[in-house]
Amino acid sequence: MNRTELVNLIRRKRSFLCVGLDTDPEKLPAHLPKDANGVLAFNKAIIESTLPYTVSYKLNIAFYEAMGMDGWKALQETIKLIPKGEALIIADAKRGDIGNTASQYAKAFFDNLDCDAITVNPYMGRDSVEPFLSYKGKWTIALGLTSNIGAIDIELLDLANGRMVFEEAIESLAKLGTTDNLMFVVGATKADYFDKIRAIIPEHFLLVPGVGAQGGKLEDLKGVMTNDCGLLVNSSRQIIYADGSEGFAEKAAIQAEKLQQQMAKML
Amino acid sequence: MNRTELVNLIRRKRSFLCVGLDTDPEKLPAHLPKDANGVLAFNKAIIESTLPYTVSYKLNIAFYEAMGMDGWKALQETIKLIPKGEALIIADAKRGDIGNTASQYAKAFFDNLDCDAITVNPYMGRDSVEPFLSYKGKWTIALGLTSNIGAIDIELLDLANGRMVFEEAIESLAKLGTTDNLMFVVGATKADYFDKIRAIIPEHFLLVPGVGAQGGKLEDLKGVMTNDCGLLVNSSRQIIYADGSEGFAEKAAIQAEKLQQQMAKML
Repeated sequence: MNRTELVNLIRRKRSFLCVGLDTDPEKLPAHLPKDANGVLAFNKAIIESTLPYTVSYKLNIAFYEAMGMDGWKALQETIKLIPKGEALIIADAKRGDIGNTASQYAKAFFDNLDCDAITVNPYMGRDSVEPFLSYKGKWTIALGLTSNIGAIDIELLDLANGRMVFEEAIESLAKLGTTDNLMFVVGATKADYFDKIRAIIPEHFLLVPGVGAQGGKLEDLKGVMTNDCGLLVNSSRQIIYADGSEGFAEKAAIQAEKLQQQMAKML
Repeated sequence: MNRTELVNLIRRKRSFLCVGLDTDPEKLPAHLPKDANGVLAFNKAIIESTLPYTVSYKLNIAFYEAMGMDGWKALQETIKLIPKGEALIIADAKRGDIGNTASQYAKAFFDNLDCDAITVNPYMGRDSVEPFLSYKGKWTIALGLTSNIGAIDIELLDLANGRMVFEEAIESLAKLGTTDNLMFVVGATKADYFDKIRAIIPEHFLLVPGVGAQGGKLEDLKGVMTNDCGLLVNSSRQIIYADGSEGFAEKAAIQAEKLQQQMAKML
């Protein structure tokens, strides 16, 4: 899915929502088995009910790997349930390794699982990111400034040149890709730094977690939008675990629609 | 495997070698099928032939994920082939994500796959590493200064306090763990920085890739050894792809023994 297609999807659905499928077997509604089959049934219902309100699904790979082979199967099957072109499929894998290893991860997530996008970790620098960027029609989503407390340990350190580590990370990565194949993860809880980020990458799409449960506010994001939106806002637990009864999927849809309605006003 | 057990293994085998199982189906000897079954047969022969000379196996997870479910199965089966206590089993996964996600990765690699150690990426800071450190008897191996060209993009940036990013990363992580559950990845090609690293972490074990193919020299590592060795040196391609014939495992053993002999002199 290229940028034009993504923007068209955003305009058609009047939404820039990304639903996070961080599906934990322990948190499934009581009527579903607490295993990979339960996860798949849950994801199927969530996808069917939320598809009108979302332009993206983000699969948190850790939750699937924690179930071993069965989890990998549930991951494969979940991806097949998402109608092609109706939502950007993001593998939230945060991979990062030297070139020949990064190529293997790209193969796993782009070729075999047919995801549209993957999140990557920039710590190891250029050769750990380039193999992902070499795929046509696929997106690489690099960590910029994350929403968690640990961001202070490395990302927010002051550099000798007066900038912070995350600024330099974003700038050096931006040189490797384009606004058509590279996005950045920026936490909604880091609103104080949005201006600095947009000064470096005025046009790149941002994938923003941290709205809702983690304390970030949707309205604070108005200032980082581009003319063609330039934003995907992720919500995971707030949507998928909105309700623990057999009516979980309807309640998830209500939560997704609520966010979509707010987003429609911002577009 | 705790530090005492690892050091005893090093003394018994007179080796601090780690054999990297970066097994690529495309690079298997011609008589083996180029699939997950071939990979498993290859790994079995390599493990059997190299076990006397190595104290660790490092499984590069990307190569298994690139084969999908079959790859995950080959990964599981390979781990079962390594006799418990005869080698430290490292999942070279370089994972890094917020706390609840990191916990799922820890479950995948420590609980389910029963690896002894996992490599982690420090970019997201403390809460992305702590869930791994909470496992008793397991090792967390954090990226410090890597051997690849991209290390200049973030790891080697100068900080305002006069240090470099990798130094600060190592120091902040060292506070979270101990010399009994935390190691650091330091590339053999970065010998110029060994003194700086040992000034921060004089006693931690280092996992060192980059000897051989990437240009690092084993003898340069003498200076970073601790009284109880404090070093694991990884070799992947140089050993496992030493020969492409049906005698590949014997040739791999010869390469491993050659390194072991050099290491015995350094111990």
